[in-house]
Amino acid sequence: MSADGSRFDPLVVVELTSDTKEEAISWLLSRIRDTQQNGGRPIQLEQLGPGVSAQEKENPNLFLVGATRQRLLSGAEDLGLFKEFHDGSMRGFTCANKHNFKDFQDGDSFLSMAECQYIIKHELDTLRARDETHVPGHQQVKLYPGKSIIRRLLSKGILIQVFPLHQKEELKRLSFSWYQKVKLSFQPLDDIRHYYGEGQALYFGFLEYFTFALVPMALIGVPYYLFDWEDYDKYVLLAAFNLVWCTVILELWKRCSASLAYRWGTLSRKKAFEEPRPGFHGVLGFNPVTGREEPLYPNTKRQLRVYLVSLPFVLLCLYLSLYIMMIYFLMEGWVLSVHDEEPTFWTGILCFIPSVIYAVVIEVMNLIYRYAAEFLTEWENHRLESSYQNHLVLKVLVFNFFNCFASLFYIAFVMHDMVMLRQSLATLLITSQILNQFMEAFLPFWLQRRRNKKMIRKVQIRKTLEDKELPLADQVRLEADMSTYLGTFDDYLELFLLFGYVSLFSCVYPLAAVLVVLNNITEVYSDAFKMCRVFKRPFSDPAANIGVWQLAFEAMSVIAVVTNCSLIGMSPQVKAYFPESDMQLILWTVAVEHGLLAFKFILTFLIPDVPKHIQINLSRLEFESLEALKKKVKPEHFAEDRWRALC
Amino acid sequence: MSADGSRFDPLVVVELTSDTKEEAISWLLSRIRDTQQNGGRPIQLEQLGPGVSAQEKENPNLFLVGATRQRLLSGAEDLGLFKEFHDGSMRGFTCANKHNFKDFQDGDSFLSMAECQYIIKHELDTLRARDETHVPGHQQVKLYPGKSIIRRLLSKGILIQVFPLHQKEELKRLSFSWYQKVKLSFQPLDDIRHYYGEGQALYFGFLEYFTFALVPMALIGVPYYLFDWEDYDKYVLLAAFNLVWCTVILELWKRCSASLAYRWGTLSRKKAFEEPRPGFHGVLGFNPVTGREEPLYPNTKRQLRVYLVSLPFVLLCLYLSLYIMMIYFLMEGWVLSVHDEEPTFWTGILCFIPSVIYAVVIEVMNLIYRYAAEFLTEWENHRLESSYQNHLVLKVLVFNFFNCFASLFYIAFVMHDMVMLRQSLATLLITSQILNQFMEAFLPFWLQRRRNKKMIRKVQIRKTLEDKELPLADQVRLEADMSTYLGTFDDYLELFLLFGYVSLFSCVYPLAAVLVVLNNITEVYSDAFKMCRVFKRPFSDPAANIGVWQLAFEAMSVIAVVTNCSLIGMSPQVKAYFPESDMQLILWTVAVEHGLLAFKFILTFLIPDVPKHIQINLSRLEFESLEALKKKVKPEHFAEDRWRALC
Repeated sequence: MSADGSRFDPLVVVELTSDTKEEAISWLLSRIRDTQQNGGRPIQLEQLGPGVSAQEKENPNLFLVGATRQRLLSGAEDLGLFKEFHDGSMRGFTCANKHNFKDFQDGDSFLSMAECQYIIKHELDTLRARDETHVPGHQQVKLYPGKSIIRRLLSKGILIQVFPLHQKEELKRLSFSWYQKVKLSFQPLDDIRHYYGEGQALYFGFLEYFTFALVPMALIGVPYYLFDWEDYDKYVLLAAFNLVWCTVILELWKRCSASLAYRWGTLSRKKAFEEPRPGFHGVLGFNPVTGREEPLYPNTKRQLRVYLVSLPFVLLCLYLSLYIMMIYFLMEGWVLSVHDEEPTFWTGILCFIPSVIYAVVIEVMNLIYRYAAEFLTEWENHRLESSYQNHLVLKVLVFNFFNCFASLFYIAFVMHDMVMLRQSLATLLITSQILNQFMEAFLPFWLQRRRNKKMIRKVQIRKTLEDKELPLADQVRLEADMSTYLGTFDDYLELFLLFGYVSLFSCVYPLAAVLVVLNNITEVYSDAFKMCRVFKRPFSDPAANIGVWQLAFEAMSVIAVVTNCSLIGMSPQVKAYFPESDMQLILWTVAVEHGLLAFKFILTFLIPDVPKHIQINLSRLEFESLEALKKKVKPEHFAEDRWRALC
Repeated sequence: MSADGSRFDPLVVVELTSDTKEEAISWLLSRIRDTQQNGGRPIQLEQLGPGVSAQEKENPNLFLVGATRQRLLSGAEDLGLFKEFHDGSMRGFTCANKHNFKDFQDGDSFLSMAECQYIIKHELDTLRARDETHVPGHQQVKLYPGKSIIRRLLSKGILIQVFPLHQKEELKRLSFSWYQKVKLSFQPLDDIRHYYGEGQALYFGFLEYFTFALVPMALIGVPYYLFDWEDYDKYVLLAAFNLVWCTVILELWKRCSASLAYRWGTLSRKKAFEEPRPGFHGVLGFNPVTGREEPLYPNTKRQLRVYLVSLPFVLLCLYLSLYIMMIYFLMEGWVLSVHDEEPTFWTGILCFIPSVIYAVVIEVMNLIYRYAAEFLTEWENHRLESSYQNHLVLKVLVFNFFNCFASLFYIAFVMHDMVMLRQSLATLLITSQILNQFMEAFLPFWLQRRRNKKMIRKVQIRKTLEDKELPLADQVRLEADMSTYLGTFDDYLELFLLFGYVSLFSCVYPLAAVLVVLNNITEVYSDAFKMCRVFKRPFSDPAANIGVWQLAFEAMSVIAVVTNCSLIGMSPQVKAYFPESDMQLILWTVAVEHGLLAFKFILTFLIPDVPKHIQINLSRLEFESLEALKKKVKPEHFAEDRWRALC
């Protein structure tokens, strides 16, 4: 039962550690329920009862959070959520104007559950300390006026997690239309957005778009492979097509993403003022923007940390990675020479050993580096989650790029061995695909399955429910035990590396596009599966675009121009055109490369980022709000003037 | 006397052709004066009386326009002008809040005269036809509801010009502190902005910034020239410094310009909805953004014109320009061979002839091309003045770049003649500077002087006023006869070409920076002089940055990386490092060039475009307006909910 005695729909679960002091809990609950704010519409809260199979070990401090519809609507207004207006345009929702929004009369379905959960999360995040100096019962958890309580509890480990609940029915429907249907069709992006929010939906939209965009490259690549066209005239054509195509698809994706974001109302939503991230620390002071008391950390200090510690560290890691690569090539050369001298069964096996060692070392390095990068980025003490993410993405991206492609670059531009390049490319691509699919979906699923089975068995023992719905308490505990989805970072990283395999050496291995297309098709299914079955539901994230990844993909397409041009310039068939002078050849290659780069930049300028009709809609909205402002101000100004005239 | 019988300050002059029909004039005047709008505060209007030396020829249809202070203030609010708030931040002016603005109590000086004139211009521009189908008395001048009357009259030639009046006193003060003082000091940018508006002030700010930014390059360049350092190690250092320096100064200018624009309140001012330009035509329809009736012209048609006619035309002109250059080099070679065979006095003179012919042909081509570009851009039928300007700038820019630098490129990269390159560079730079200074300031001044003298003589005959103030009527007629300032286009173009001379071949002719610095110092004086003495006062233009020119300068600095790297790569001293293979040399050159380009782009990312403290101020404003919005909406929403609960 919630505070006001009525039954409510639980939206979000808050889990505190089992050793939280009683007074801290009751203080937190009263602060969350606080009826003084928001015109007497409290957030609803309820402690979760014991599960069917209550045990000693079970954590009693699980709380369900919900809110009345009125509270959610006013939260939607606070957040500036955009909803469809009756004329089909997207507008910021306001309660005063609510009846003019489409589907408002539909009752509870106006706000999707993901939106409601996002609103609750925002309400919890902006729950601020007043005059408390510490959390009651926990002297060490200091507070100061204006500090977000939830974030402090999270950073001190008293709050284990806050997560939104799944909706069994809707999830079943979604997963059926998403990945359980046999027939090949587009993904239900609107439903995905409805259930998981815009950030997730944009990832799946990008995955789908990327797959379709690669189909022409794959189709053109197939005959090259089948008929073994070693003719470099044709390769030049293929490479030129690929380079222009990569630019065009990235530009068109911006338009596509703008369309999606407009339809979902995140394109023109203004971001609310971003809170400091939970781990951010510093001397207490006043934020120059909001005037609120919060920790301040000098920017110069952060920059010093970035440029004097993180940057050298990353460069050192890159050097190390290069060094290990060189050792690998030395070992490989030595093993091959041994095998060539006296080929036996054992030397044959020996041939595989360097590759295996190298692969293992790379994986280990990636893992260690990832931890180091997270530690360093944490230590850089970024104020905003977004800036933390950007720095982390950049660090991990560069290192992964090096690890994946350095050996290929070495083979291509130092060893000049095109046959080996093709073999390595194929091997790397195929193994990484298989490994990824396995690590990403099947392993977590298998682990989850084991956990679930244990739970279900327990339930069966007590109630002999079979395949029927679990009671809420057990369902919540089940979900609390599920793995946490860590965001789209790794998924994008994987796509980024695949894009690298396709674009960087496209003129050497035309089949790469085919492999990536096939991989992406299974990727859609495995990602969908893991989202629906393996992980806790993530909070939705009202993203308007794919952010820093757009930049990363564009950078890759610029590097691809350089590599492809050099590869073609190095090919013997092209060299044959310049029999007397290598210089002429290189100058031509460089000229063509510069031309292509210039063409890319011009193309980027010429293709508008937002489709025309959306631009018109956006400027109409802006125009209308300006006009409304004028009308609103005029009469009162007029009245004031009259009044002044009378005085 | 104005309509309401009180004396007023004339701000703007409207000149109609002398054969305008009486009924058209009286209709226009009544429409401008229209007291129905804006709470009974009309625009004031007065016909200019005959001058002291009234003649038959004199145009009687000159009108002075002014407005009451109230009307100007409400116009400032409509335009969203930013003024300094009492706390020192810049905020959009609103009449309701007017007493919180700094200096508001000062009376008339709150709005500068330039701002008042800009407001009047806006009021005139937005004077729209209601149900008139044509201008009374002029059947051929069609109107439709919502059409801007002034723009239609302008495009049909009935309205000759609308221009703001100079302020004798303030102009005298400004010109004294600007260019008549002997001591070298910074320009009075704030005063320039106060008198001419932000667009002009930004140009002069950029000119000054650019001059100071070149001083380090000039200082480093001098010893190279004096001591004849032909040592290419040093040249490499110089070139590297120059390249990085160019990037840095362009990036820092963005910050500088943001600071200026913030101080002047144009940085965050939202542009009002832009009107179609006067010459824009099309089928009458409804604007999808405003819903107003206005001509529509399909975008695809415009794009077809741009890509199928304008682009080929520009390319053809570039080809022609190259062709003429080749003829020039052929003639030059032939003349030199004649001179070498049998050197006489006449062949010595003959040597100059190709250069002279080429220079004349280039000037003629530039002139013809300029007209063609204007015609084509007009024919492309751009809806907005800004888009018209961008297309025109691009066309003229590319052609001028070609004409200026094609011969230098040819000498450098086809003839490989560094001595000749240096000579040509010096000749071109010095002649273009002298010509420019002459054409730009002294010629118009001399013409103006002659016109003025005639006028003053006439006045003297009738009143024997000597050097005393002219009566208003004569002053206005004098100004109406002054040349019209055509905007900052040509001034920026000149700076752009100078920047090209400095940056493109900086490693060949280090003295270029010195010459450009000297030129810029005189340029400040001649530009200031022509603004104050030669031209009509221009309407102010609330620009927030230098617009498309920033892009043009950045593009130039990218091209400079390519040219400098190639020049250094071609130098014999660098070639000596790679004795056995040209290929190694070129590969290194290309690698260094790519490295520099990448470094430039990274630098562009790393240096924030807006200084930190301005960013903080801007986001504080945004935060405050969001908070205010929340507070404003909350109570009424609460009330509405209560009301709904009661029902």
